Amino acid sequence: MKIAEIITIGDELLIGQVIDTNSAWMGQKLNAIGVKVKQITSVSDDSIHILNALDEAKKRADLILITGGLGPTKDDITKVTLCKYFNSSLRFDAPSFEVITEIFKARGRDVSEINRKQAEVPSNCEVLLNQWGTAPGMWFEVDEKIFISMPGVPYEMKGIMENRVLPKLVSILNLPPIQHRTILTQGIGESNLSELIADWEDHLASHMKLAYLPSPGMVRLRITANGPDENVLRNQLDQEVEKLKTIANEYIYGYEDETLESIVGKLLREKGKTLATAESCTGGYIAHKITTVPGSSDYYIGSVVAYANRIKEEFLELDPEIFKTHGAVSEEAVSKMAENVRKKFSTDYAIACSGIAGPGGGTQEKPVGTVWLALATPSKIITRKLLLGRVRERVIMEASQHALNLLRKALLDLI
Amino acid sequence: MKIAEIITIGDELLIGQVIDTNSAWMGQKLNAIGVKVKQITSVSDDSIHILNALDEAKKRADLILITGGLGPTKDDITKVTLCKYFNSSLRFDAPSFEVITEIFKARGRDVSEINRKQAEVPSNCEVLLNQWGTAPGMWFEVDEKIFISMPGVPYEMKGIMENRVLPKLVSILNLPPIQHRTILTQGIGESNLSELIADWEDHLASHMKLAYLPSPGMVRLRITANGPDENVLRNQLDQEVEKLKTIANEYIYGYEDETLESIVGKLLREKGKTLATAESCTGGYIAHKITTVPGSSDYYIGSVVAYANRIKEEFLELDPEIFKTHGAVSEEAVSKMAENVRKKFSTDYAIACSGIAGPGGGTQEKPVGTVWLALATPSKIITRKLLLGRVRERVIMEASQHALNLLRKALLDLI
Repeated sequence: MKIAEIITIGDELLIGQVIDTNSAWMGQKLNAIGVKVKQITSVSDDSIHILNALDEAKKRADLILITGGLGPTKDDITKVTLCKYFNSSLRFDAPSFEVITEIFKARGRDVSEINRKQAEVPSNCEVLLNQWGTAPGMWFEVDEKIFISMPGVPYEMKGIMENRVLPKLVSILNLPPIQHRTILTQGIGESNLSELIADWEDHLASHMKLAYLPSPGMVRLRITANGPDENVLRNQLDQEVEKLKTIANEYIYGYEDETLESIVGKLLREKGKTLATAESCTGGYIAHKITTVPGSSDYYIGSVVAYANRIKEEFLELDPEIFKTHGAVSEEAVSKMAENVRKKFSTDYAIACSGIAGPGGGTQEKPVGTVWLALATPSKIITRKLLLGRVRERVIMEASQHALNLLRKALLDLI
Repeated sequence: MKIAEIITIGDELLIGQVIDTNSAWMGQKLNAIGVKVKQITSVSDDSIHILNALDEAKKRADLILITGGLGPTKDDITKVTLCKYFNSSLRFDAPSFEVITEIFKARGRDVSEINRKQAEVPSNCEVLLNQWGTAPGMWFEVDEKIFISMPGVPYEMKGIMENRVLPKLVSILNLPPIQHRTILTQGIGESNLSELIADWEDHLASHMKLAYLPSPGMVRLRITANGPDENVLRNQLDQEVEKLKTIANEYIYGYEDETLESIVGKLLREKGKTLATAESCTGGYIAHKITTVPGSSDYYIGSVVAYANRIKEEFLELDPEIFKTHGAVSEEAVSKMAENVRKKFSTDYAIACSGIAGPGGGTQEKPVGTVWLALATPSKIITRKLLLGRVRERVIMEASQHALNLLRKALLDLI
């Protein structure tokens, strides 16, 4: 398997001014063609530091991808540093200058001397024409290693990677097959999940690797398989996913890049059903998640965010007696919220949520993190009580994930 | 100046499944106390690779911060690797186990054997108690170098950094005085802002440095000053902020770590006023932002998320003629939404928002990104039209920022 290393150059990364999103994107793309990223290194705009990073990377990797430091200003030193590293010198590249001239023309500007210099490249490189910006990409082959230098601006880097680098790598490298499956789970923590599937995990073949990727309210499982035959790997992974489903199916809600909101959206659309929400402690977050999906207006009607109890009374028609007898955070309250918002908004389904997000408002009986969920369907009302810990943001996020998963299960007749 | 290096551990970073946001956050925080981050290195869940990265980092830095690989599962190997590196062995840490037990109790779960193991730490470390999750932070001092290991889950890492690591570093390292001021602006883009304040920026003293930190809907300006006397630096920075205010005051909404939602929350509470919202294109995101603030139930009453026009008609009493004559995305529609939700929810203020978040729904006249905002106050209705580009998430986020800033200005009688 070919090993790659990514070097990102720029002080702005080290002082935290810019989050390095390029590396993750490159990692995904390289993995997809069977190149393994061994290390990502972010270094400063400093020649010696860059030279050291290149030396180190060359020891570990077959392929070194470099981004950043190709702008027109004084702190951009990648090109001269590469000249030093390869004992080369700058030459003027006419095709690159043509692109630069065109870009400036399209903006009604003249090309300055400083921009003309952007068309200069180390004489030992092959130019990767950049049609998305003014800094050319560069491809070097030295001592059987490949070095690729690209701008740090994400869409320029992506343009060069997708149109120049990846096709070239696929055509010249003899890449071994690699396959991934990502399984998305909800409703079980990382440690409980790992105990549940321990036996299955122990029996995974040695060319397969399992990773747990937890985030608030969900755990993603990723199985990676390496081997000589892509179709064999695909079949093996399919089989492992099937085995996993026999053990943990009740927690699996999707695969790969799906989200709960896109899954319930797809199900609602397929079935021609509509949805409304009534939120208290989640304060509109469930509505927000649902409406991040393009086209959600086809099935999502709206929400009453009833943060104050008087809104629950006046707009969701909750009997004030409920608050006195059971409290706003109770099965009785959320049931009525779900039932009534479904009726008032004339939808097929309705989600309601009420809880104590904290940090205040907890009691002995109902500590911070207590959340009641209700789902009203055309035929019944399903309720759940959750205990989601003491961190306000997590209570809101996890309650929303649980609510969407409850809806998913109901849409699939699993509950 | 003390030099730090960040090592992030996890295959998920290298295959691009997770974007490393931790390093940028840590870089910012370390910079703020006068520690310079020299390099960020992301390595795989592989013992030899981690050991190499530790060795390399130790050569370059005084301070090595490590995140990730502390989960309870088999692919989490940071602790055993650190034992190997320091020639140490694992011991059971009772205080950490207490925290773990409490966390599980708050979620109504039992502590399993695998979770008990999370309380084990290398015997040569000082434990940095993690109250935000189950993996303890660890502090090592070896050969006059400091090694700090923390979980990769962002809010756990942040909890440990802010409450344990940063205070400890400040108290034990003899850090040179460094002072920062962060000025928060809204309603002006990075390049326009830089033109507006160019003259002021050019006249900044050489021991001061300005950084632009843009994010959707806002630009933060950070001035950093180095020098021998902390009090002198503080006074100088105060003076520069005052100068900046004379140039750009209309765009400045706050300072340091404030958020628009916390600022409007504080103003509403001080004035004893209440707020409701009526959202269409933002789909509950404004309500969500407001309710992320603890105690927001004191002033925030609730929202009607009227995603479908029929909800705007039935619950916000919009005349159907408005849709025919002006459309749902119009000054007339949002004005009525704000006016009526204010009346129906009996609040002092009400925000309404309607727009085309995209990718569908745009027209020649009203392209994707067109958003109308309205703010109903006790005495008037203020409206704004925005053009927020073509990225759905950004339209939602920026519209919400604009809406909250409109409210802030009204609460301060600036509009």
